[in-house]
Amino acid sequence: MLTPSRHRFLIIADGEFGPLSSKTANSCIRYFPERIVAVFDRKQAGKTVHDVLGFGGAIPVVGDFERGLALGPTAVLIGIAPAGGQLPAEWRQWLRATIERGLEIWSGLHSFIGDDPELGRVARERGVRIHDVRKPPAKLPIADGRAAEVEPYVILTVGSDCNVGKMTAQLQIRDELVKRGHRARFVATGQTGIFLEGWGIAVDAVVADFIAGAAEQLVLEGARDADIVLVEGQGSLIHPGYSGVTLGLLHGSCPDALILCHQATRDTIGDYHGREPWVKIPPLPELVEIYERAAAPVRPTKVIGICLNTFDMTESQAREAVARAGDETGLPASDPVRFGPEPLAEAIIREAMAAR
Amino acid sequence: MLTPSRHRFLIIADGEFGPLSSKTANSCIRYFPERIVAVFDRKQAGKTVHDVLGFGGAIPVVGDFERGLALGPTAVLIGIAPAGGQLPAEWRQWLRATIERGLEIWSGLHSFIGDDPELGRVARERGVRIHDVRKPPAKLPIADGRAAEVEPYVILTVGSDCNVGKMTAQLQIRDELVKRGHRARFVATGQTGIFLEGWGIAVDAVVADFIAGAAEQLVLEGARDADIVLVEGQGSLIHPGYSGVTLGLLHGSCPDALILCHQATRDTIGDYHGREPWVKIPPLPELVEIYERAAAPVRPTKVIGICLNTFDMTESQAREAVARAGDETGLPASDPVRFGPEPLAEAIIREAMAAR
Repeated sequence: MLTPSRHRFLIIADGEFGPLSSKTANSCIRYFPERIVAVFDRKQAGKTVHDVLGFGGAIPVVGDFERGLALGPTAVLIGIAPAGGQLPAEWRQWLRATIERGLEIWSGLHSFIGDDPELGRVARERGVRIHDVRKPPAKLPIADGRAAEVEPYVILTVGSDCNVGKMTAQLQIRDELVKRGHRARFVATGQTGIFLEGWGIAVDAVVADFIAGAAEQLVLEGARDADIVLVEGQGSLIHPGYSGVTLGLLHGSCPDALILCHQATRDTIGDYHGREPWVKIPPLPELVEIYERAAAPVRPTKVIGICLNTFDMTESQAREAVARAGDETGLPASDPVRFGPEPLAEAIIREAMAAR
Repeated sequence: MLTPSRHRFLIIADGEFGPLSSKTANSCIRYFPERIVAVFDRKQAGKTVHDVLGFGGAIPVVGDFERGLALGPTAVLIGIAPAGGQLPAEWRQWLRATIERGLEIWSGLHSFIGDDPELGRVARERGVRIHDVRKPPAKLPIADGRAAEVEPYVILTVGSDCNVGKMTAQLQIRDELVKRGHRARFVATGQTGIFLEGWGIAVDAVVADFIAGAAEQLVLEGARDADIVLVEGQGSLIHPGYSGVTLGLLHGSCPDALILCHQATRDTIGDYHGREPWVKIPPLPELVEIYERAAAPVRPTKVIGICLNTFDMTESQAREAVARAGDETGLPASDPVRFGPEPLAEAIIREAMAAR
């Protein structure tokens, strides 16, 4: 268990800090701006985070790593992936300086910093912790349905595609449920969620045989001291690259209900590499059916609400899209960031009561 | 690329050699008995392989590892998984003796023998190769549909459950197609298939994000010099533990057609750990629909034949089960081991011609 609330972070986003290019950095800034002392990016140096992202306030962007360290962080958080996946020499220098100051490193990279011979050794010598949050636990089970037996009501977000708001939806819903006095717990399944919450498993990084087992273990863990467990979804059942992760998560977490997330303006699967989009996103009612049918042979579940991401629409377009989504599916719908998660929180409470 | 045909193997199956307990050893014995000098198992020592399995002829079972080595193997093949997943001290001793004799080690264990500090070092010092066939390639792509663009006709076996004959079906079909003059190539996706063919990727052992990418890479590789590519299936879309691997393989390999495999007497998913069976296997027509629907949003495909595994039925029961499977689904059906793969090979040729 990490303790993000005790830390003050310097975020590395060198050369890539921007609204669309630094997803991890941006989520951290959105969810815990008060814990961030600065963003390091030589390109945007001198601006504030708000200047670059349109949110995040007066957090400075610094162009000199040492200057960032001088602002008093207790940890350095890696907010972008270096191009090519390997650690460039400059990064190595920054991370070494971080460790030598006795500051923790928080990383969600696929290649583990703690396994780097030089950085790993220096960290061990100085007794400094490197948190490679994508590193799976050593021992994971093969899923066998134990997640179906927990007491709390379990909800999984599922999506039309990657990067449509499955994590954000659950966080908004969690806050709303907690505000109403429910013991609701968010379960992180990706690096950003783990940065936010301090625990979880990046299910896309486990060995394929253990995807569902990781989901099962997370639900069992999240079920302690909770009445409602909100599992962060990943990928999409219709994504050519990541669908396996999505199905493993669906079968392993044994959700009582699903919330379907979609970016209203998106009509093809968008997140793969350098090729023309070729997988069409079907209409919402068809997506509902795809998820319910995929779950059914293992454990039936149902979609009980729709979360639309409307960030690139005007206010009136967004209202119209939400109304249409509700009409098409006959389900409560909202953009939980723009219009609030109330309809979804209410649907969950209603269904959880009915399931008792 | 390994070269199984050049080797003579001593198989380790200590304490577990038997019809149901040593799946990897048994498949190797079934497919290349002529390359196996002995099986090492202290419990069954003194018997022949045929005594224990009911096939495999006069291959001796030895109770002394050194005696096995004295029979002149060029490699030691690990035919069972040690209980608990860790290498017991005795195993370590056997494997060290193997390396010190200059013999290769072939292993499909989840924990990699080459990564063992002691055994890895000794092997490097002596220049001996350890083949951890479950170790994924260093660089895998995120799948993006390139498997759909290969020239050959691609067939994937899918199943009602694990361990119903998805590999065996493809091997039988491959042999039949080759006999008829077709350039048919088997693509291994699991450890036993890799032992048999000398190449492949154990897709259950790759990092979850890369399941479909591994499948894509395998199809591109298999498509060279082939007119028909036969991809070994894994798991089942209705298996609570392994469904993610199955969906990733389905979407990543972009098959033109599927062959559905089922063990005729099995009615619940059986391969998970110490709990009552709780997932029912639906009727074959429903399974056909489950696979076709799961594939459709990414790339439509269809089931074109049924492979029944009838090993535990009488001859007349088996004939009846095959006839019923054909009637229920309207598709060619056979037990490819018991009654031959001809109906399936013919269905593939017919469909491949029609697709030109």
